[in-house]
Amino acid sequence: MVDSATRIWTAALVIIGDEILSGRTQDANLSYLGRWLNLQGVRLKEARVVPDDAQMIGNAVKACLAAHDYVFTTGGIGPTHDDITVDAVAAALDLPVIYHPEALAQLEHWYKGELTEARRRMARVPQGADLLPNPETGAPGIRLGRLFLMAGVPSITQGMLRGLDGTLAGGKPVETLAIGAWTPESRVADMLSDLQRANQDVQIGSYPFWREGRGGANFVLRAVDKEKLRTVRDMLLAQLREAGIDAVEGEI
Amino acid sequence: MVDSATRIWTAALVIIGDEILSGRTQDANLSYLGRWLNLQGVRLKEARVVPDDAQMIGNAVKACLAAHDYVFTTGGIGPTHDDITVDAVAAALDLPVIYHPEALAQLEHWYKGELTEARRRMARVPQGADLLPNPETGAPGIRLGRLFLMAGVPSITQGMLRGLDGTLAGGKPVETLAIGAWTPESRVADMLSDLQRANQDVQIGSYPFWREGRGGANFVLRAVDKEKLRTVRDMLLAQLREAGIDAVEGEI
Repeated sequence: MVDSATRIWTAALVIIGDEILSGRTQDANLSYLGRWLNLQGVRLKEARVVPDDAQMIGNAVKACLAAHDYVFTTGGIGPTHDDITVDAVAAALDLPVIYHPEALAQLEHWYKGELTEARRRMARVPQGADLLPNPETGAPGIRLGRLFLMAGVPSITQGMLRGLDGTLAGGKPVETLAIGAWTPESRVADMLSDLQRANQDVQIGSYPFWREGRGGANFVLRAVDKEKLRTVRDMLLAQLREAGIDAVEGEI
Repeated sequence: MVDSATRIWTAALVIIGDEILSGRTQDANLSYLGRWLNLQGVRLKEARVVPDDAQMIGNAVKACLAAHDYVFTTGGIGPTHDDITVDAVAAALDLPVIYHPEALAQLEHWYKGELTEARRRMARVPQGADLLPNPETGAPGIRLGRLFLMAGVPSITQGMLRGLDGTLAGGKPVETLAIGAWTPESRVADMLSDLQRANQDVQIGSYPFWREGRGGANFVLRAVDKEKLRTVRDMLLAQLREAGIDAVEGEI
């Protein structure tokens, strides 16, 4: 048995929408969810972007459910014909779609009695689902066990996630420390590689940049063990400075 | 046989990097590639974001190659230990990794003779690969038939794509027209749905927004046939105005 504190909990995100793939809309939910999940002790391990296509949505959700503890989707839960997430997911999971009574009541209240057929669509959920409160508009998100169907509009997505704060089972969050250095990463690749090999429990990433005509790199260290993380950060900082490289704590 | 002008050419993008999933880095390549591909007559049909994990990179690339005409990857082709794209792809495709002579020559020139072992890493390619010129730094991208391994830094990625302009076989690009309207999308959902049903060759997307305390929506119409696209746009604009809705050509 794996200790629940050391077990690594993982999640996947399925981003739904033609507008993301066509380049019309820049996704802003992935990076937010990645950071939010880390605070819950869960690692975002993969993401998929799929068009408004029921088969592709269903396949992505099923594959992600099979591989991860939690699956989140964004997009396609509004009132219009191109909002097909609920039907696609229900079909993929062999569940009927029903009107959720509480969602109907919320929408009735939000639209002050003008609950047209199109607006009622937003109360449709796969059978067995619970609601995710939406603090911004009347249309709730949907929770089906470890599957969460959320809105695509970032402020609404974030509101739905706030409602889930602290409610997911997870492990320890990953802590991050960084070093910024004015060096081409290729100059210190061996140093990084040796340090990584000697410290497998700290994950070292190297992210080069060019700025004001100068090349540099940020080295991002991530680990569950804070003490170990600080130790390796200090070792790298010392090694860089010994090599005569201008390096500072934190990204530059 | 499918006529090559009407056949739909599709592509997938595999975004590689822990930093995207952790939320440290906001991906900027997906939307650029989506728009660039459309100009080549190719539709970006799916994207996957995977961590620096050889198995997950390999699986994603293989699955995408099986489903699409072209596959692009971004990230993980630099000189450091966390750059594992070439090895992961070569392993997944059962190819040996070799040093590409021309890449070595380019790197030798770029680093003015200071070609360390770490820098030589950037000349490693799966056997049989060609190079994608990199106008910004000395490290080339890699082309293996219909698979393209590109850098993750957006300015470099875009430079590599410019080198591919007009070289991919594709179909007709999708044209886009839009209408912006000051109405909650739920009010016009039936109108949109009826119009979509009657015009299956024009794809109608509805994207709501809230701005300055007012709700509105942009309706984005996409089709290969320009004439048809304009006709359906004009129909929708007329219907919105008949319903007393403040609507204009173009997104608002």
